[in-house]
Amino acid sequence: MKLIVAIVHDEDTHNVMEKLTDQEYRVTKLASTGGFLRAGNTTLLVGVEKEKVQDVIETIKSTCKSRKEIAPAAAPMMGASGVFMSYPVEVQVGGATIFVLNVEQFEKA
Amino acid sequence: MKLIVAIVHDEDTHNVMEKLTDQEYRVTKLASTGGFLRAGNTTLLVGVEKEKVQDVIETIKSTCKSRKEIAPAAAPMMGASGVFMSYPVEVQVGGATIFVLNVEQFEKA
Amino acid sequence: MKLIVAIVHDEDTHNVMEKLTDQEYRVTKLASTGGFLRAGNTTLLVGVEKEKVQDVIETIKSTCKSRKEIAPAAAPMMGASGVFMSYPVEVQVGGATIFVLNVEQFEKA
Ligand code: NI
Ligand code: NI
Ligand code: NI
Repeated sequence: MKLIVAIVHDEDTHNVMEKLTDQEYRVTKLASTGGFLRAGNTTLLVGVEKEKVQDVIETIKSTCKSRKEIAPAAAPMMGASGVFMSYPVEVQVGGATIFVLNVEQFEKA
Repeated sequence: MKLIVAIVHDEDTHNVMEKLTDQEYRVTKLASTGGFLRAGNTTLLVGVEKEKVQDVIETIKSTCKSRKEIAPAAAPMMGASGVFMSYPVEVQVGGATIFVLNVEQFEKA
Repeated sequence: MKLIVAIVHDEDTHNVMEKLTDQEYRVTKLASTGGFLRAGNTTLLVGVEKEKVQDVIETIKSTCKSRKEIAPAAAPMMGASGVFMSYPVEVQVGGATIFVLNVEQFEKA
């Protein structure tokens, strides 16, 4: 048995939990950081048999992969012509960090 | 030294923390999931010497064991007679999932 | 790769995260316990190469070390003279518990 600790971005949490659950994996979601750093991350715990580790990792990586998205500018900016304009902005979203730990003993009650 | 990661149901959290603390174990409670799946779970961390692992596991299992309870129906239902009736419902509560991890180094400050 | 799980007091969380981040470590903050026991603790996850473990531990220990502080009494007390007086109180603050776990596999997406 292995314990997978995955740190994913909040925006991907719903999708990755849904995909893992559809595959009958039991996922535990630790509450979001809320901290001043790396806010917007969620930590997931998934306990699986050794043979399933790679499958879980593939699901997480494909669902959460780091990518660029076009977001509207946060606030309108004054253009050279004196007219307020809103520029779309390219932002990096997603990404995941995954640690696989060995489980020495596993118990259910 | 071992690190025990236990996922228990919210309803058992108070009791199991009290029992472990009474036995002088230090328990850290990670905030509840709050997620859309498996809401109502709490993750506990307990660091203990190898010789104490089985004792902690026994305490968690006996306090959190999966069991059936009679709960009032969530909402009244219209009976055949046209009278609203509330049926008691048997629900599964409790349960725990426990992972024991090896600790390579342990430090206190 | 190692995963460092550090339980620190809330009051030290900001400082220790700032110091670790200044040294380019990636720190994940799990939401505070909020529980009835050991409330006021925060759990931090730091994934690092084996060579960096001792450096991270030193930073955590030096920032979070257990110490005494003078705090104003929580409530004024009636003195012998019949005058309300507020006594400063020496309280124990800080402290950290650190577990180092081996990471069998590490992935980023
Ligand atoms: Ni959905
Ligand atoms: Ni009680
Ligand atoms: Ni600061």
